[in-house]
Amino acid sequence: MPDPSRCSGVFAPVVMPFKSNLNADASRLIRQCQWLRTQNVGIAVFGTNSEANSLSVGEKIELLDQLVDAGIDPLTLMPGTGHCALTDTVRLTHHVTKLGCSGALVLPPFYYKDVSDEGLYRSYAEIIERVASDKLKIYLYHIPPVSQVGISIELIERLIKRYPDTVVGIKDSSGDWKNTKAMLDARWDNFRVFAGSETFLLQNMRHGGAGCISATANINPAAIYELYREWQSDGADGLQESLNTLRSWVQKFPVIPALKSIVAHYSNDDDWLRLRPPLVELDHSQRKDLITHLEATNFTMPGLQDEN
Amino acid sequence: MPDPSRCSGVFAPVVMPFKSNLNADASRLIRQCQWLRTQNVGIAVFGTNSEANSLSVGEKIELLDQLVDAGIDPLTLMPGTGHCALTDTVRLTHHVTKLGCSGALVLPPFYYKDVSDEGLYRSYAEIIERVASDKLKIYLYHIPPVSQVGISIELIERLIKRYPDTVVGIKDSSGDWKNTKAMLDARWDNFRVFAGSETFLLQNMRHGGAGCISATANINPAAIYELYREWQSDGADGLQESLNTLRSWVQKFPVIPALKSIVAHYSNDDDWLRLRPPLVELDHSQRKDLITHLEATNFTMPGLQDEN
Repeated sequence: MPDPSRCSGVFAPVVMPFKSNLNADASRLIRQCQWLRTQNVGIAVFGTNSEANSLSVGEKIELLDQLVDAGIDPLTLMPGTGHCALTDTVRLTHHVTKLGCSGALVLPPFYYKDVSDEGLYRSYAEIIERVASDKLKIYLYHIPPVSQVGISIELIERLIKRYPDTVVGIKDSSGDWKNTKAMLDARWDNFRVFAGSETFLLQNMRHGGAGCISATANINPAAIYELYREWQSDGADGLQESLNTLRSWVQKFPVIPALKSIVAHYSNDDDWLRLRPPLVELDHSQRKDLITHLEATNFTMPGLQDEN
Repeated sequence: MPDPSRCSGVFAPVVMPFKSNLNADASRLIRQCQWLRTQNVGIAVFGTNSEANSLSVGEKIELLDQLVDAGIDPLTLMPGTGHCALTDTVRLTHHVTKLGCSGALVLPPFYYKDVSDEGLYRSYAEIIERVASDKLKIYLYHIPPVSQVGISIELIERLIKRYPDTVVGIKDSSGDWKNTKAMLDARWDNFRVFAGSETFLLQNMRHGGAGCISATANINPAAIYELYREWQSDGADGLQESLNTLRSWVQKFPVIPALKSIVAHYSNDDDWLRLRPPLVELDHSQRKDLITHLEATNFTMPGLQDEN
């Protein structure tokens, strides 16, 4: 029987709005999270697509406090907390746990390459021992195309054996279904496997997965949630196909600026176009290309402008 | 004519001692830096080999203050200051500049991959504009094997054109002499090119380079400095060869734990063996292998035990 203290569903790594001075814009972020909640998706703030690694720990703590103060239920939050430095990861993970968030999505330390499973095990173990809370729920974050440091099946097994009530799931952004399936086939007790994109949502659900945490859930949350809810229905394959069509269009562009361009357009708010270096916005012709096609397919983001 | 406000010589990315609770050990770090100064090498604290990316900005600021309070001349310091998050890099670079360090060695933001030169340009420009000091001297840090995000010739040219008094040099840890030589051949006015290891020191000096910043300068500083000083002498090729022999032995092992094992052995202080996760120490047999060979070659670290 599933453990209700462990998450499932669709989560969005919420794109991060910036002011003209490149400070994070808490008001716009709150409104965006409120809109995402109306679409039934969870709030995976500080993911890769949130430009989380362009923000300091202090900035992230302040934003989290503002989200919770604004009434976002901590149980809907699964913030990313993994940094290169052990002390940074511990500080943010501790705060996330204290706020009562449903989990922490924890990247391995990603500066040093070719590190051993032993080193990564020690890293996660040290975080868990330092945070020292039975409320801590860690979701491992496997995204080798970006972090270049991955999480092996053997490492997961070692961690859940030692910390079965703390290491409770994973987001697999390898883009490799075989890897996700190997995790599902392991049938670790009550362990939640999230696909790193909706492309694998239906397959993931059919093999016992918990849902997905996907960039595209920033712009297409209701439809992704619908497939999550209806995965056992006759129409599931059709829903999956239509999600794939939208996603592959967005992926023709650099994804983070593309998502921000779409949010800017459909909320009629160009402040959403800004990114922190080293990322850069789409140029005018890319934006036009992206949006013209979406409009031609009658794509909408219902309710977004009301929230913004 | 060389500008004396710009560095040259041999620098060591000082290995970082940790206490049993994995906090950085300021006393041991101070003593190590004092010893390195007796060997005529500069102090590139918070380099890759310092496990800098396993420490938070706050920890690094505290250590820097302690080094300077202990009497380490800021003009001998070239601390690493580059982080993923713009705000972290700005905070540490600002502090380094305020302390009067001779320069800041600045990694590009390294989480997001396949970023554009435009994005990296904006990143460095934003750091420079925010620190806003004519005392700031930036040395770019090109280490694609680890950071996976590199610094192109075109990016350097754009930066030194816009900030000629601030972007004053580079450490090239590509391991690719052709890349270093391309930078030297560009003959940018008074721009200092440091080889990322002593393997390329003689070639670098013969083509107008400024010296090297090398892991091995932690253990073999006097001999590396000798080649730097004597590069025009008849014996230079022989000196280079003997540096290469030692370095290639050390490189048979994971380098950071190997350096720490050597410092631990020659200072008779096993506290030096510790690393922060995700790095792990050499096992007993690796340590024995490493040290037995060094002793057989009559390798020494004169004066180290006196300082420690």
